[in-house]
Amino acid sequence: MQTTTRRIGGWGFEGEVYPPSPQLVEWLERRVGPPGPPLAPGPCQPPQLPARPLPRLASDVSSDSRDRLAHCRGQGLVDVIRLRSGLIPALPDGVCRPADAAAVAAILGECRRAGVRVIPWGGGTSVTGGVNVVADSSPVLILELERMAGMSRLDPVSGLATFSPGTTGPAVEAALAEHRLTLGHFPQSWELSTVGGWVATRSAGQESLGYGRIEDMVAGLELVAPAGRLRLPERPASAAGPDLRQLVLGSEGRFGVITEATLRVRARPATTIVEGALLPGLAAGLDVVRELVVSGAPLTLVRLSDANETQMAMAIGLAASAGASLVRRYLALRGLGEEACLLLYGSSGERACVRDVLLCGRATVRAHRGVVLGARPGRHWLRDRFRHPYLRESLLDLGWATDTLETAAPWSAVAAVREQLVAAIAGALAGGDERVAVLCHVSHPYRDGASLYFTFFFRCAADPEATIARWATVKRAASQALVDAGVTLSHHHGVGQWHAPWFEREAGVLGRRVLATVAADMDPDGTLNPHVLLDPEDRLEV
Amino acid sequence: MQTTTRRIGGWGFEGEVYPPSPQLVEWLERRVGPPGPPLAPGPCQPPQLPARPLPRLASDVSSDSRDRLAHCRGQGLVDVIRLRSGLIPALPDGVCRPADAAAVAAILGECRRAGVRVIPWGGGTSVTGGVNVVADSSPVLILELERMAGMSRLDPVSGLATFSPGTTGPAVEAALAEHRLTLGHFPQSWELSTVGGWVATRSAGQESLGYGRIEDMVAGLELVAPAGRLRLPERPASAAGPDLRQLVLGSEGRFGVITEATLRVRARPATTIVEGALLPGLAAGLDVVRELVVSGAPLTLVRLSDANETQMAMAIGLAASAGASLVRRYLALRGLGEEACLLLYGSSGERACVRDVLLCGRATVRAHRGVVLGARPGRHWLRDRFRHPYLRESLLDLGWATDTLETAAPWSAVAAVREQLVAAIAGALAGGDERVAVLCHVSHPYRDGASLYFTFFFRCAADPEATIARWATVKRAASQALVDAGVTLSHHHGVGQWHAPWFEREAGVLGRRVLATVAADMDPDGTLNPHVLLDPEDRLEV
Repeated sequence: MQTTTRRIGGWGFEGEVYPPSPQLVEWLERRVGPPGPPLAPGPCQPPQLPARPLPRLASDVSSDSRDRLAHCRGQGLVDVIRLRSGLIPALPDGVCRPADAAAVAAILGECRRAGVRVIPWGGGTSVTGGVNVVADSSPVLILELERMAGMSRLDPVSGLATFSPGTTGPAVEAALAEHRLTLGHFPQSWELSTVGGWVATRSAGQESLGYGRIEDMVAGLELVAPAGRLRLPERPASAAGPDLRQLVLGSEGRFGVITEATLRVRARPATTIVEGALLPGLAAGLDVVRELVVSGAPLTLVRLSDANETQMAMAIGLAASAGASLVRRYLALRGLGEEACLLLYGSSGERACVRDVLLCGRATVRAHRGVVLGARPGRHWLRDRFRHPYLRESLLDLGWATDTLETAAPWSAVAAVREQLVAAIAGALAGGDERVAVLCHVSHPYRDGASLYFTFFFRCAADPEATIARWATVKRAASQALVDAGVTLSHHHGVGQWHAPWFEREAGVLGRRVLATVAADMDPDGTLNPHVLLDPEDRLEV
Repeated sequence: MQTTTRRIGGWGFEGEVYPPSPQLVEWLERRVGPPGPPLAPGPCQPPQLPARPLPRLASDVSSDSRDRLAHCRGQGLVDVIRLRSGLIPALPDGVCRPADAAAVAAILGECRRAGVRVIPWGGGTSVTGGVNVVADSSPVLILELERMAGMSRLDPVSGLATFSPGTTGPAVEAALAEHRLTLGHFPQSWELSTVGGWVATRSAGQESLGYGRIEDMVAGLELVAPAGRLRLPERPASAAGPDLRQLVLGSEGRFGVITEATLRVRARPATTIVEGALLPGLAAGLDVVRELVVSGAPLTLVRLSDANETQMAMAIGLAASAGASLVRRYLALRGLGEEACLLLYGSSGERACVRDVLLCGRATVRAHRGVVLGARPGRHWLRDRFRHPYLRESLLDLGWATDTLETAAPWSAVAAVREQLVAAIAGALAGGDERVAVLCHVSHPYRDGASLYFTFFFRCAADPEATIARWATVKRAASQALVDAGVTLSHHHGVGQWHAPWFEREAGVLGRRVLATVAADMDPDGTLNPHVLLDPEDRLEV
């Protein structure tokens, strides 16, 4: 039974599990081989790393060893492996929970003077090493923002709601539901992640096609930096110089602490329906997605799995149901074989309007020789969409490791980028005789391109450090393939510590330097989260 | 008859005029009094300001006195007054026309070493002093980008077209029309302004509701700065750090020269129809605009005039037509009197789709007790939309001066900001016994607010410097009112030299400083356009 207690060393809440189906286990055995040794369940005991002294701060500091353990790393695969196996190189020296922006400013001042590094902490769900404590000669303080939560202002006429940074996804929606409003921002981490984290990492929700990315939602914000306060009031639009909001968006806690964000909200939809369909192949599926987006039909979600991911989805869902072989025979008859790709398309709003939009979706599917599967696959997906991350923990229990990475590409490059990345990921461990299985889906489509999301699986090694090394090898190969293909290092996960070695390829020498200059201006002593974004050292195995 | 020769000391092309109707003249006499002394027609003879020596550059330099005169200032009211009356404090020392980005880089290097200031020049249509030459101890070179024009790449699958910076609006649309595509960016300056200028100033076109602002269209770009080249490839979206594109957008030639932009383009619409309606008052009109935008109906344009602007529009258009008094009597019967507000709403696309969208517009109008006027006012407006700026020159011929300024506000503040600005502008010359007439319309609506566009009129003084002083007094009062109201200094005109004294109020002390730090990094010797954006000196009367 799911509790409200956050798990340490694993995703989400204690009590919640999402075990693999027998079909998935069978699929993994076929694709990557029998499981390796299971990983210890964890969490480990906090390592004996004495807390270094911190200055007296404006808010109380906890140096409780479990609190320090709970705030030493994010939610990447390597973080979970370390927290389960106890191979933890560093803990923060304290965790402090300021109540307001004034306290944040005071704490940053104290820490700057005392040479303490500060890591802002929202939901702690980074999968890029974005909140990880690095063993360092300076003490490290976690600025846990959970007390700065809630909706502080609502302008219903303008559709603007102001939130404190520590507000989680469910708290945002609960506050807005009272006014029949929604933000519509549903990243997979939604149950845990926070407004401040979304802004800091340029988050995109699963329904970004309809509601936009977080940068489309931010009308105004406040950042407290060691060098001062940046208050950017809400603007529908402005031509008054470069957009400083867009400099804060994606700054990953490197420039300052986001202490407030005013977000564009909308009327709460009466209903959300997601339908499924099968397309005869990836090319046809990509055409359908692009046509749907370019048509301007008010869909909120379109998601296309490649053939591998489709087969896995069918192994888990469709094929597991009664009449699976009947379904397969029918699909084969319709020309849908091994290359078939699963499409989900959804819309939110008034029931009649949603129905019309889905009819338009079906027509496009059929024009490309696809088969409409109805609302059942969509209901499945909606029900489980925040549970999928729990699967990782269950697989580690068995001896398999899994992780995801993502990018975005113009439509003309989507198919080629997928092939290049699949090749890079699948081949990364070839030298060591291990296999990597890769799935891909296209989601978050835009008029000019789409995101590509890769899920990969491999076997755990006997030594957790060796499992981490396998993972790091895959990550390096994938990051290199991304920059070589000229596409972005991340569509919505961010840069963090783990993509930072490739960031200069993304932003260019001058672009990276300009951001470093901004960091030096806002945070002259490198007090804030100094190893993300701009620090090129490879910390994948740290 | 309109030619293709740019006029010096006035808007647009030689031969084109847009004289005021007798009704407008009568309206002006009633509202601000009889005209002042007419301004000399101009252009003046180039003043005797010898060109200072420039270093040998990668491209030929013109020091022709007429070329220098044509490139000494933009298209603000004060610029036109100076160019007509010959009161010109400074000319550039040369005009050079590089052929490509490599030449731009070479020229910037030469000028940096030689201590020459460089002003990038696209269409030269700034109305904020954005390209004005300031009398200065350093020589000034105009970097005229007209040779760097045209579409260099097209990716029709992704809907991405790459343009050189000097490409004008008509050239953009002509290049795309061959492929049945459109950019859909139609600022009032469209016939003259350029891709580079749009990007540098965060331009918004009249159909931004449908096509977005220029910052929504920019997928990638290249900037050549004195410190190096910033190449930002096209991205559908990215979470890899702060968005450097958004730092270039709005940089007004202060950070570097935009040498290329890759823009999101769309299918060319079969038709564009704009309809008119009258609403009983501003409040009802604002409700209609907001409801239309929030509904998500695919309108490309919504524009609401306040009662003053409506009366002037009717004085020029409707009332000038046969049966004017009949129309008036009918409207009065429908409850539309002095407070009536003119609404235009338009859509582009397939004919059937456009018709449906306009039906939705009509229904919303009628739900607020408005009267639909049909497509005639819209046809008028579409026909004249790029001619309106010529009116200024004709009024100066008569002895009246006119200018515009604009902002944007959240919906909850739109009405109050309009009142505050109208009061500030109308009262600005009260101490000197002169009257200012102010019109306002709301255009460029967003889900969370809208732009407010003010047009004001006053009498010319006998001395052109005194006319300029009157204008500067109004501008100061308006800029102060904007920052006091907490709204932006500009929705689409930019900051330039003239809004720069108030820019710190817009961006905050830290925000302005961060941008100055970026400028110092990209352009260490202040070579590029040094008096825009970040230079707080008041140059309204220079």
